[in-house]
Amino acid sequence: MRTLQTTPEGFALTLDQTFLPFERVELKLAQLEDCVVAIQTMQVRGAPLIGATAALGLAFALREQATDAALTAAWERLAQTRPTAVNLQWALARVGAAVTPLAPAQRAARAWTEACAILDEDVAANAAIGAHGAALARALVPRSGAPLQWLTHCNAGRLATVAHGTALAPIYALHAAGIAQHVWVDETRPRNQGASLTAWELSAAGIAHTVIADNAGGQLMREGRVDAVIVGCDRVARNGDVANKVGTYLKALAALDCAVPFWVACPSATLDPALMQGGDIPIEARSPRELSHIWGRTAQGQRVEVQLFPDTSAAFNPAFDVTPARLVTALITERGVCAAHQEALAALFPERFA
Amino acid sequence: MRTLQTTPEGFALTLDQTFLPFERVELKLAQLEDCVVAIQTMQVRGAPLIGATAALGLAFALREQATDAALTAAWERLAQTRPTAVNLQWALARVGAAVTPLAPAQRAARAWTEACAILDEDVAANAAIGAHGAALARALVPRSGAPLQWLTHCNAGRLATVAHGTALAPIYALHAAGIAQHVWVDETRPRNQGASLTAWELSAAGIAHTVIADNAGGQLMREGRVDAVIVGCDRVARNGDVANKVGTYLKALAALDCAVPFWVACPSATLDPALMQGGDIPIEARSPRELSHIWGRTAQGQRVEVQLFPDTSAAFNPAFDVTPARLVTALITERGVCAAHQEALAALFPERFA
Repeated sequence: MRTLQTTPEGFALTLDQTFLPFERVELKLAQLEDCVVAIQTMQVRGAPLIGATAALGLAFALREQATDAALTAAWERLAQTRPTAVNLQWALARVGAAVTPLAPAQRAARAWTEACAILDEDVAANAAIGAHGAALARALVPRSGAPLQWLTHCNAGRLATVAHGTALAPIYALHAAGIAQHVWVDETRPRNQGASLTAWELSAAGIAHTVIADNAGGQLMREGRVDAVIVGCDRVARNGDVANKVGTYLKALAALDCAVPFWVACPSATLDPALMQGGDIPIEARSPRELSHIWGRTAQGQRVEVQLFPDTSAAFNPAFDVTPARLVTALITERGVCAAHQEALAALFPERFA
Repeated sequence: MRTLQTTPEGFALTLDQTFLPFERVELKLAQLEDCVVAIQTMQVRGAPLIGATAALGLAFALREQATDAALTAAWERLAQTRPTAVNLQWALARVGAAVTPLAPAQRAARAWTEACAILDEDVAANAAIGAHGAALARALVPRSGAPLQWLTHCNAGRLATVAHGTALAPIYALHAAGIAQHVWVDETRPRNQGASLTAWELSAAGIAHTVIADNAGGQLMREGRVDAVIVGCDRVARNGDVANKVGTYLKALAALDCAVPFWVACPSATLDPALMQGGDIPIEARSPRELSHIWGRTAQGQRVEVQLFPDTSAAFNPAFDVTPARLVTALITERGVCAAHQEALAALFPERFA
C-alpha cells in the first residue's frame, strides 16, 4: 500500500497527516492548490513525499492551463512552499524539463506521466535503500537473539515517502526477514512527527518501539542501549553535510561520542551537488505557534488544541539543522552505502557530480 | 521575594509549580505529607528547592512525633521521593545529624532551626554564584552593545531554589547591572520546565528571552547565535561529571563542537564526593504519562490535559542524564569558579574532599 496513490481518474489519494495518530483522514489531491496547501500545512511532509506531491501539483496545474506563463507560475508557487528539502526543487525541475519543449496541448499528459514515474522511482529507490541498509545492519544484530536497538528521529518512514520509507526501510526489510528489533522513537518536537507518525506506522507494522523525549537519546547511547542511529534527510550538500529535521545534529554528536554508528538514508533525489556545503542550505523557520500550541485528544475523545506557554514569551522555530559530514558514519543510497564525502558520492553518482 | 518562605507560625509557603505558567497557585507546607507529595509530584522541583523542602518536611514530622523510630521513618520516606538530586539526601543528613543526639522533646525545634539555616544558606550561596558567574560572563559581553546571548536548559532559576536561582543567578546579576542580555530557553520536554517556568520567571523579571524546542539549540550554536550555555545540576560526582535534566548532555556536546563555553552552576550542596563518577549516579525514570499527555490551556481559558499519542505505543522517560566532566568548561560554585575535576573541587572545598 502506497502513502501516495494515483487513481485511474487522474487524481491522487494520500492521508492528511495532521490528523494522525488518532484519526485516519484521507486527502484527495486534484488541483494545484490542493498540493500547495498540503505541502505548506504539512498534511504531507517528508522530503520524498513533498517532491512527489509537487510533481503531481505541476501536472494538475497544466491541466487547467499549459502556457509558458502558467507553467512558470505554478512551478514558482510550488517551489516556494518549503525552502529546505531539495526533492521539491528536483521534482519540479524534472517535470518542468520534460514539458517545456512541448506544445502546450501536450504538456499536461506528459507532466502526469513524468510525475507518475517520479512516484514509481521513489518506491524503487526506497526498496533498494532498505536492502542496502539491512545488509549493513545485519553485522550489528546481537548473536544472543536480543533485539537490534535502533534510534530514529522524526519520521522518515512510509509516511514520508510514496512507499517503504527511507530511514525505516532497512528496519522493515529486517522485520520481513524475521530479525528481532526495537526502535527508540524520538518524539521530535515541535510537530511530534516521531510520536505521531513513526510510532503509528511502527505500531501498524507490528515492530516493537518506545517513544522517548528528544532529550533522552544521548543518555540511552551513553548507557549502551542503542546499536545504531538511522535518520532520513532533506538535503545533502556536495561535501556530505546533511540537512534534516532539527535535532538530528545533536543525536549525531552523541552517536560519535558513544561510538554508535550514525546512518543517513539518502535517496539520490535528496543530493544537491550544486551546494558546496551544509552552511549554504536555507533553514526554514516555521510558525512559533507550532511550539506554543499543540493538538491532542482529551479523555472524552475530543480533538483539542491547547496553549503551552503565554504570548508574553516569544518562540523561534527552525525546522531543520545541518549535521556536518564528519559526524555521519555512512550514507545509504539506492545505489549502495558510501561515506559522506564528495569523492564517495561522485563514485556512486558520477552523472550528478560531473 | 523567596520562592520558599517560612512563616512566623512555623509553616512554609511556596508556589504549586504544576499550575504555572497560566495560574499562580500558592501551596502551604505544614506537614511531612505535604512535603512528600510536593516533591514527588513536582509541585516543587529543582535540586536546591527539593533539598530545602525535604529539610522542612523532616522538621514537620518531628513536631508530630520525635522518637528515633519516627525520625528514621520520616527521613526514609523523604529520601525516597526523588533518587537523583543529592541535595535531598544532603539536607536530610544535615537535619538528621543535628537532631539525632538530642532528646526527642528538643528535636522539633532544633530541626526547624536547621531547616531555616539551610534555606538561608541556599539564598546566600546562589547570590555568590550570581556574582561569580556574572564576573565570568562579563568577558563575553559584546563591545557592540549587542545583547549577551545565553542558552539554558530546564529551570535552574528562582523557581528551582529558595531565591536567586543557580544557572539564572548570573543572568539576574548582570540584568541588575544593566547589561543587555537575551536568553534562548529550551522548552525542556517532557515536563516543559523551560517553556513553563524559566520563560515565566524571565518574563516577570523583564529579561528578553525566546522559547525554542530542545532540538534547536545545536543549530543556533552552529550559527554563532549563542555566547554561553549555562545550566544547573542535580548531582556532581567526585570527578566533575554532572547529572542534570535529561538533554543537558546533548547541549554540552554541541557547545564543545561549536566552541561555546558550557557552564554549570553548582552550589556545594549538589556535590557528591562519595560518588567517584557520573555513571554511578542513579537516573530516575518517571511516568511515561509525562510524555504521552500534556496540560495546556484552551482558547476558552480552560486547563485541559490532552493525550499526544495512543496507548499502543510505549514510552520511556528518564528524567536526567550525565554530562561527562570533559564537556564542562567550568563549574560556578558559591566559593568561586573552578574546572570540573576532583583536584579543582578539592581546592575549593577541602573539607568535603578530605
